Amino acid sequence: MDTRRRVFIETIPASIEGHVRLKGWVYRLRVLGKTTFVILRDCSGEAQCVAATESLRDLHLKVEDTVEIYGPVRAEPRARTGCEVAIAEIRVLHRAGHNLPFQSAADLRSVGLETQIQYRPLALRNEAVGDIFRVQAALLESFREALSRRHFTEIITSKIVGGGTEGGSNLFQIAYFDRVAYLAQSPQFYKEHGVAGFERVYETGHVYRAEPHASSRHLTEYYSLDVEFGFIDGPEDVIQLERELLTDIFQDLNREWAPVLGRYRQDALPSMLDVPCWEFEACLEILRAEFGRTDLSDDLDPEAERQLCERARRETGVSAVFVLGFPVSARPFYTAPRGAAGAAASFDLLFQGMEITTGGQRLHRREDLEAALRGRGIDPSNFESHLAIFDLGMPPHGGFAIGLERLTCQVLNLPNIRQAVLYPRDRYKLTP
Amino acid sequence: MDTRRRVFIETIPASIEGHVRLKGWVYRLRVLGKTTFVILRDCSGEAQCVAATESLRDLHLKVEDTVEIYGPVRAEPRARTGCEVAIAEIRVLHRAGHNLPFQSAADLRSVGLETQIQYRPLALRNEAVGDIFRVQAALLESFREALSRRHFTEIITSKIVGGGTEGGSNLFQIAYFDRVAYLAQSPQFYKEHGVAGFERVYETGHVYRAEPHASSRHLTEYYSLDVEFGFIDGPEDVIQLERELLTDIFQDLNREWAPVLGRYRQDALPSMLDVPCWEFEACLEILRAEFGRTDLSDDLDPEAERQLCERARRETGVSAVFVLGFPVSARPFYTAPRGAAGAAASFDLLFQGMEITTGGQRLHRREDLEAALRGRGIDPSNFESHLAIFDLGMPPHGGFAIGLERLTCQVLNLPNIRQAVLYPRDRYKLTP
Repeated sequence: MDTRRRVFIETIPASIEGHVRLKGWVYRLRVLGKTTFVILRDCSGEAQCVAATESLRDLHLKVEDTVEIYGPVRAEPRARTGCEVAIAEIRVLHRAGHNLPFQSAADLRSVGLETQIQYRPLALRNEAVGDIFRVQAALLESFREALSRRHFTEIITSKIVGGGTEGGSNLFQIAYFDRVAYLAQSPQFYKEHGVAGFERVYETGHVYRAEPHASSRHLTEYYSLDVEFGFIDGPEDVIQLERELLTDIFQDLNREWAPVLGRYRQDALPSMLDVPCWEFEACLEILRAEFGRTDLSDDLDPEAERQLCERARRETGVSAVFVLGFPVSARPFYTAPRGAAGAAASFDLLFQGMEITTGGQRLHRREDLEAALRGRGIDPSNFESHLAIFDLGMPPHGGFAIGLERLTCQVLNLPNIRQAVLYPRDRYKLTP
Repeated sequence: MDTRRRVFIETIPASIEGHVRLKGWVYRLRVLGKTTFVILRDCSGEAQCVAATESLRDLHLKVEDTVEIYGPVRAEPRARTGCEVAIAEIRVLHRAGHNLPFQSAADLRSVGLETQIQYRPLALRNEAVGDIFRVQAALLESFREALSRRHFTEIITSKIVGGGTEGGSNLFQIAYFDRVAYLAQSPQFYKEHGVAGFERVYETGHVYRAEPHASSRHLTEYYSLDVEFGFIDGPEDVIQLERELLTDIFQDLNREWAPVLGRYRQDALPSMLDVPCWEFEACLEILRAEFGRTDLSDDLDPEAERQLCERARRETGVSAVFVLGFPVSARPFYTAPRGAAGAAASFDLLFQGMEITTGGQRLHRREDLEAALRGRGIDPSNFESHLAIFDLGMPPHGGFAIGLERLTCQVLNLPNIRQAVLYPRDRYKLTP
């Protein structure tokens, strides 16, 4: 074996009695009289490296410096991994500055979120913050795998569009050569077109909402996990797919990330298979009867979402409920009706007190879409290129979208959505 | 087993002697006197279904209609899968229109690309066109898996930025509330920040170039497979990672998609492990000596890319070559130099006659970046928030970006990049 080649820290235990060359960041530095411990971090883990304090003196080593270390691996029962590296050679690759806003190994709960975002790389080196984004990446991977197993094809659709899918408000405008274009609010139309071609599609990508406010749960740019599929019998099929999908994802996370999840939440992630589905009208009744809420009619508010989840938890042990049958008037024109009383075949999933999904069955007949548009005072000819797709043979279909940042927040009990996005964008924030 | 439940077509052979309920599109319709064959397609495959012509008469079935079929499965050696479904019940779920621009089962080589894009779902139902996007999705999945295996973390970075990474030209401008923002040309800065936090990162997402022309190889919005990693010794490490990564991806495709690849290309996809790396100056010499090209100095052009690939193929059997050492002046300011003669530690990968990657080593010291900016007449204070990240402990690093649409084209021998994107965007095209 070429012992001069750099190896990842996670392989050190396999090199016991041999030599290793490591590269990484000085994460912690403990000077104990004659001995100095350098805790080195790379993308695979942390290693305890030791040297005589005297031998390191001229190096002026400090945390966050990037270094290369070479030396023998020896058993050390007091080290986390049961071994350590004796530093035979050490070289600084690049020195960090002297006045950093915080140390990556510190407890970052005392560091403001704005500072963490401003110095994102330093925060990412912190294990607790880094874990948020590692779990998010794992979640995304599970999402894609669970859908691929179910015959869904990943699609990529344009984020530069000629108009909005939901009526034209809250759109960011782009100067597109000599024309005006917009950032897509949702891949809704494209994923329906995808159904007409592939039957089952998903997309993971950014969507944009020019939300004029900046709350703890809104971003102007977020990452949407979009699913759409054909040949459904009703919105219950869509809800059932989401139950199964989230259960798969949560099982993966429980299996692969249990120690990390344990630092963020009390219980393992639940099975979602028995999450109930309550009618919107019944929810209003529960909110009136049990929580004295008489102020709601067309939609739920954050407080109502928490109240319904609390009620669901008492009833089922899981803080989650699908709410089905929102008023058609409060939903986009392409929403299928549910019964004749003005309800829509449209649902939200509330999970641990927050809406993380909107979904439902869509209209699949051109004549119904045209009537829905006219009913909202919109001339169907404005949507002709979209409507023309419904002449190509469109199955009954539906789908949903999960906001990745919100799901990450609910999985890890994060209070502010900005903790679940590397570079948040809101009304006021455009950098870094 | 509940035979009333809809099953996917691929499971039919397992139901022989049983009954199945299918849903899908009428892909082909063959009326042979008394017997009619309905070739049904769903997301899992094609099934031969048969009925007495007379029994279907009142249904006025036509291709592209979506239907539900119920009936017994019986062995039929002449059918592609060795069995067929006798239609006991059939119901039209949704009728396609009467005047469609083409049939999805037709040979679409005779249908213009513009028409295919306009009626994308109908084209996707066509096996040959659908396969392009299924292979693209597989390629994307392999890319992510191959990097996850190598300790890379997937990151998601903002596409709304305050300025450009490469100097400000070719940027699309966004009206961001009361400010001006831009669509990101590349996640370059963010992925370097990612390296400072995670050491190894990748991102798959859109990038935007306001290219004022519309060629067969340019799009204003394309999907970039971005990789960046730390602790490299030089650009050769970056090149070696790309050799291994593409070899992994190509092996996956050869294994899973051989019949499809066989319809698009003569040979299986090659191993990329022995793809040579030629210096830019040596390439100019080859082009002069062997192809009489005296017109090139700072960069290659499409013709030169084809010529170098031809030369590489003669020499190695594989039509691919890394070209390393482009002039620094032709590369972005963050590019590391290579030697003292004005060359950059920057490379392109040419594959089957087309550049599919740009990559290289980046500057990792703040003072070098500041000097590079000043050398280009740019005030470093314009980039202060980016430069500040280099004080946090930045390893020597590099990376590359592969254009997904171009890679798809080269894998499947497609002459026009618009064949490898569902909804292309260019100077003139903003819909569908």
